[in-house]
Amino acid sequence: MSDLEIEITDGVMIATFNRPEKLNALNNNIRVGLRNALAEASQNDEIKVLVLTGTGRAFCAGAEVTREKSPTSNGVTTGELNSRYDRMNIRAGSSETVQAFAACDVPIIGAINGVTAGAGFGISLCCDIRFFSEQTRIGSIFSKRGLASDYGAAYWLPRLVGPAKAFEMLYSGELISAEEALQIGLTNKIFPSESLLSETLSFAKNLATGAPMALTAIRRLVLESTDTVERNLFLDREWSIQAQLLKSNDSKEGFQSFLDNRPPEFTGT
Amino acid sequence: MSDLEIEITDGVMIATFNRPEKLNALNNNIRVGLRNALAEASQNDEIKVLVLTGTGRAFCAGAEVTREKSPTSNGVTTGELNSRYDRMNIRAGSSETVQAFAACDVPIIGAINGVTAGAGFGISLCCDIRFFSEQTRIGSIFSKRGLASDYGAAYWLPRLVGPAKAFEMLYSGELISAEEALQIGLTNKIFPSESLLSETLSFAKNLATGAPMALTAIRRLVLESTDTVERNLFLDREWSIQAQLLKSNDSKEGFQSFLDNRPPEFTGT
Amino acid sequence: MSDLEIEITDGVMIATFNRPEKLNALNNNIRVGLRNALAEASQNDEIKVLVLTGTGRAFCAGAEVTREKSPTSNGVTTGELNSRYDRMNIRAGSSETVQAFAACDVPIIGAINGVTAGAGFGISLCCDIRFFSEQTRIGSIFSKRGLASDYGAAYWLPRLVGPAKAFEMLYSGELISAEEALQIGLTNKIFPSESLLSETLSFAKNLATGAPMALTAIRRLVLESTDTVERNLFLDREWSIQAQLLKSNDSKEGFQSFLDNRPPEFTGT
Repeated sequence: MSDLEIEITDGVMIATFNRPEKLNALNNNIRVGLRNALAEASQNDEIKVLVLTGTGRAFCAGAEVTREKSPTSNGVTTGELNSRYDRMNIRAGSSETVQAFAACDVPIIGAINGVTAGAGFGISLCCDIRFFSEQTRIGSIFSKRGLASDYGAAYWLPRLVGPAKAFEMLYSGELISAEEALQIGLTNKIFPSESLLSETLSFAKNLATGAPMALTAIRRLVLESTDTVERNLFLDREWSIQAQLLKSNDSKEGFQSFLDNRPPEFTGT
Repeated sequence: MSDLEIEITDGVMIATFNRPEKLNALNNNIRVGLRNALAEASQNDEIKVLVLTGTGRAFCAGAEVTREKSPTSNGVTTGELNSRYDRMNIRAGSSETVQAFAACDVPIIGAINGVTAGAGFGISLCCDIRFFSEQTRIGSIFSKRGLASDYGAAYWLPRLVGPAKAFEMLYSGELISAEEALQIGLTNKIFPSESLLSETLSFAKNLATGAPMALTAIRRLVLESTDTVERNLFLDREWSIQAQLLKSNDSKEGFQSFLDNRPPEFTGT
Repeated sequence: MSDLEIEITDGVMIATFNRPEKLNALNNNIRVGLRNALAEASQNDEIKVLVLTGTGRAFCAGAEVTREKSPTSNGVTTGELNSRYDRMNIRAGSSETVQAFAACDVPIIGAINGVTAGAGFGISLCCDIRFFSEQTRIGSIFSKRGLASDYGAAYWLPRLVGPAKAFEMLYSGELISAEEALQIGLTNKIFPSESLLSETLSFAKNLATGAPMALTAIRRLVLESTDTVERNLFLDREWSIQAQLLKSNDSKEGFQSFLDNRPPEFTGT
C-alpha cells in the first residue's frame, strides 16, 4: 500500500491519502505522489477528472509533527540545506504544490471526508469543487501553532468565503463544522459519510463523459479570472478559446447530438 | 416589431429581447441593437437607468442554432472572414458586447424572466443587479456542447458566486432554479413571474430619481474595484471622484434637501 | 472625555467613537485620533488586537453636516487650500485613513453597535471582522446626497458581498438591517445589543493570547491576497513568511505545547 493510493476508473483518477493511523499527515511520499498525480492527470488523455480524498476519519490533518523532527510543512529540516536549490527554495513543498494544482488541466474534485487542517486545509482549498461529509471538520490550525498559512490557504480562502470570514478562520485557527462551512460557501454540498465517496465519484464520472477540451478550457479560464488578469484582456482570451473550441469535433458533436436529441459522444478532438 | 424592443419611460430605458418563438435566441439584430442601446443610455441625459428583459418564457436561451449554419455565438461563419478585421477579430460579438456593458454609464438592471443559457447566461451576468422570476432557470449549457464560456460568463461568475460554485456551474453546464441561484448570490431577489417586470421597473424608476452623476460614479467605481486596480490607486481615485461630486449642484441639493427634510430634486449638474 | 476614547486592557486596544449626541459624526479629532490609534496599535507590542466601536445608538453616522459648513468627508472646506499639500491632496482623510487601516499590523474587530452610514460605512468595512448588534442598521447613504463613495466602501464592499449586492447597496443608498447584512455576509455574527461589546471583547482577548507575529502575518497575507498580487508571487510570499515563522520561538512553543497537551505561552518572538 502506498501513502498516496492512485486508482483510475471510468476516466476518473482517484488519489487517496492513505496513512489513516497518522490522520493522513503529509509526508514526502504524499507530496511527491500528489505532484506526480497532478502531472499525470494533465498528460494522460484517459484521465478526464481527478478526485482527491482520504482514508479513515481524516482528509489530511496537516504535516507530520514528531518530537524527533522540527515540524515543517515541506519536510525540510535544518542541516539539509546543503545545495543552492535548498537554500534558495522559498517555494518549498507549499508553493510548488499549489502551482501544480493550478497547472493541472482536468477538473479536481475533493471528497473531503473528515478532519482537514494545516497543510491539509490549504490542499483542500486547491480543489475546484469540495464535497464534505457530515463529519468533516475544517480549519487552518496554524495560528494556534504560532504560524500563518501555507499551501495557498491565504490565496484561496478570501476568494471562497470573502475576506471577513477568511480573517475569522485564519486568526482563530478553529475548525468549523460541515454545516458552518456550507453557510459560508466553503463546501459545494454535504453528503452522509457513508455515501460521500460514491456521490463524488458519480458526479466525477458524469463530468468525465463531457468534452475534455471544454473542461480544460473552463478550468484555465476560471483560474485566470480569479487571479489578476484585466477584464479587457480576459474577455479577448475567453472568446479566443471559445472560437477555437467552435472548430473542434466535440463542439460539432455537441450541437449535432442536441439537434438529434441523443447523448453526445465526445472524443477530445 | 423589432428583435430588440426599446422603450423609454420615466428616465428608464427598457430593452426587451423580442423573439419569443426562438426563446429570444441572440441574432445579429439583437447584438447590434444591444450595443446601440448601451451607447444611447450613456449619452442621452434623459436615460438614468437601463432595464434588460425578455418576452415570453425565456430571457435569452443563447445564440441561434440551426442545421443550416454552424452555430457561433457571434454569428460569424466560415467563408465570411474576407477582411482583416474579421480575420483578426478575436473579440467578436462576445468580448465587444461585454466591453459595451462595462463602458455603459447608467445602472443596468436585469429582469431575468425565464430560461437563461449560453450567450444569454453571460449577458445576464453583465447586468449590475439581477431580479429573477420564480420560473427562471439559468446556467451555462456550454460544456454540454463542447464549449467553454463566452460573453464574460467566466469573468463575472467567479466574482458573483465564488470560484467553487463557478466551477460547478461551468463544468456541469446544468441550469439551476431561481431558489438555488438565490442561495449562491446569483440573483438579488426573486419575484413572482407576473410581478417581476413591474417590481423591476418600480425599483428602476426610483433609482432614476437619484443623482445621475453619483450613479455613474458608483458604476465606474464598482467595475474598477472588481477588476485589477491596486488598493492605493483605487482609494485615491475614489476620493477624487467624491471630491468632484462634492462641488456639484446635486450634492448641494442632496444635503440641503436633507437639512430641509424634503425630497431632493436632482438635475444631473 | 475625548471624541475618540482609547482604552487598553488585556492586550486589546479599544477605540470608541464618543460623540453620541452627534451619532458619532466624524470630525477632525476622530480622524486624527483614529490614525494615531492605528499607528500605536502597530508599534506597541502590548497591543495585540484593536477593537473599534461607538457610544450610544450609532457606530458612526458619517461626516458632520451643518448649515455653516459645506460638508466634506475630510473636513476640508474651500478657502483652506492655501498650501500645495492641501491643493494636491486627492487622498484627503478618506484614502489616507483607509491606507492606515491597511497598514495596521494587528487584527481589527468592529463592534458595530448601531447606525452606520456615509464615512462610517466605509470605516466599518475597513475592519477585518464585524460583529453587529441586533439594532445595527448599515448603508452608504451617499447616493441620496448626490455622492458616490469614500473611505474605501467601493473597494471593500464588492469583496465582502460580491458586486451585485454592492451595486444594490451603493445605488440605493438605503440602510439594511443586521439580519439582511448577515444574509449577504456583511457581518460575521449578530449579538444582542446589551452583549455586543462584551462578546466582542471576549473574542478579541482570546485572539490577544495568540502568537503576535502569526496574527500580523495573517493580516498582511489576507490584505495582499484580496488586492492585486499574482498567484505565483503570492504563493512564494506565503511560504517565505511561513518559513520565517517556523524559526520563531512562538512556533516552537506552539508545537511543544501541543505535544505537551498544555496551553501555549507566546512571547511574540
